Amino acid sequence: MEACGEERQVKLLGALWSPFVLRVRIALALKGIDYEFIEDNLQPKSELLLKSNPVHKRIPVLIHNGKPVCESMIIVQYIEEAWNKAPILMPKDPYDRATARFWAAFIDDKLVPSLRGVFTGQGEQQQKALEESVANLVVLEEALRTSPCFSGKLYFGGDEIGFVDIALAGVSAFVKALEKITNSDSVLIDMPLLSAWIDRICEDNRVKEITLDLAKVQESIAVLLAIR
Amino acid sequence: MEACGEERQVKLLGALWSPFVLRVRIALALKGIDYEFIEDNLQPKSELLLKSNPVHKRIPVLIHNGKPVCESMIIVQYIEEAWNKAPILMPKDPYDRATARFWAAFIDDKLVPSLRGVFTGQGEQQQKALEESVANLVVLEEALRTSPCFSGKLYFGGDEIGFVDIALAGVSAFVKALEKITNSDSVLIDMPLLSAWIDRICEDNRVKEITLDLAKVQESIAVLLAIR
Repeated sequence: MEACGEERQVKLLGALWSPFVLRVRIALALKGIDYEFIEDNLQPKSELLLKSNPVHKRIPVLIHNGKPVCESMIIVQYIEEAWNKAPILMPKDPYDRATARFWAAFIDDKLVPSLRGVFTGQGEQQQKALEESVANLVVLEEALRTSPCFSGKLYFGGDEIGFVDIALAGVSAFVKALEKITNSDSVLIDMPLLSAWIDRICEDNRVKEITLDLAKVQESIAVLLAIR
Repeated sequence: MEACGEERQVKLLGALWSPFVLRVRIALALKGIDYEFIEDNLQPKSELLLKSNPVHKRIPVLIHNGKPVCESMIIVQYIEEAWNKAPILMPKDPYDRATARFWAAFIDDKLVPSLRGVFTGQGEQQQKALEESVANLVVLEEALRTSPCFSGKLYFGGDEIGFVDIALAGVSAFVKALEKITNSDSVLIDMPLLSAWIDRICEDNRVKEITLDLAKVQESIAVLLAIR
């Protein structure tokens, strides 16, 4: 079978603590694609990584039939387009697709930098990053509440986990860890829809096994601090 | 004709000096889509902009049949997907699509911030940003020279202007202005392919009329400095 042959050639270069690698692992798990996981903990970066992603030198890299694809959400779109099988991760309607891309970009451009500031910053800088993170999470809560694309649905992707869900699921362990790390018990208190979304996606059988826990979050932070 | 009806509902909210708005104007020009240009020079931001893009409050916004699409390269992908007509801006092959998305993201995530540093920075900071800009341009030169997707082609898109070309064309006036603004005559000296690409795209009849000149670049910088 050609499809099986293709799948055998799938390798994922990454680390188990990486939120960005997690996104790709979720997409591969949802599609039921078998792959070889090649661990690279970046200390030091492997020859294969430097060769496969010479521009950014970062994980994840998906290597499909010998050809490398880089950047987590670009990989997720590649998986969607290269494997023509259910579940569909991207909506079919052009406007809904633009909306999905908009929110995935919001998570990468706004939420991720603010979370990074909380987990690697200190003192006043950390406090400012926490406020920014909360403000960004409130924007996502509002999107879940009011966007015609998302409102009343189980996931950003509708009844199924989709593109935006994968983008956010990658960092959801960091969102959950916000309260522990900042000694605050009210980060998500006014975000019932987002809280329910986090619980729901973490309970999904396909996601549950590979999702990050607090120990992995701490490992991730340790690496971030070591290599910056 | 339904297509004509649809096209009449196309509005572009933007400013003539914006490199990001330019990308959308190029995509619309290539596809031959008529639209109403609604000028917003951001001083102050219009009610329509604040309502259409409440998250980022920035231009461009494409309003199609009353629905807003935000973020320049998301808009370009929307145009590609919503109007099923030539020329094709995105390759059909999933790997080539991932490659196009990778380089468009490189331009936005690496080249644009370094160029911004040159045009809004001063002294040592400006010098550092210039070095980063040159390093990023060298990476693009290398991609044109060695990538199987681009090497030997007229454009990143092959024989025709495509997704990466549009991303880079938006900021090409800023690349051209680098030498003037930094009093250096050697920025592009070791980049024959990129230099030829800039000349070629600026000479394209559909791009020529709307491309930015040095005066527009200076207007853009003035606004950037005023609103930051």
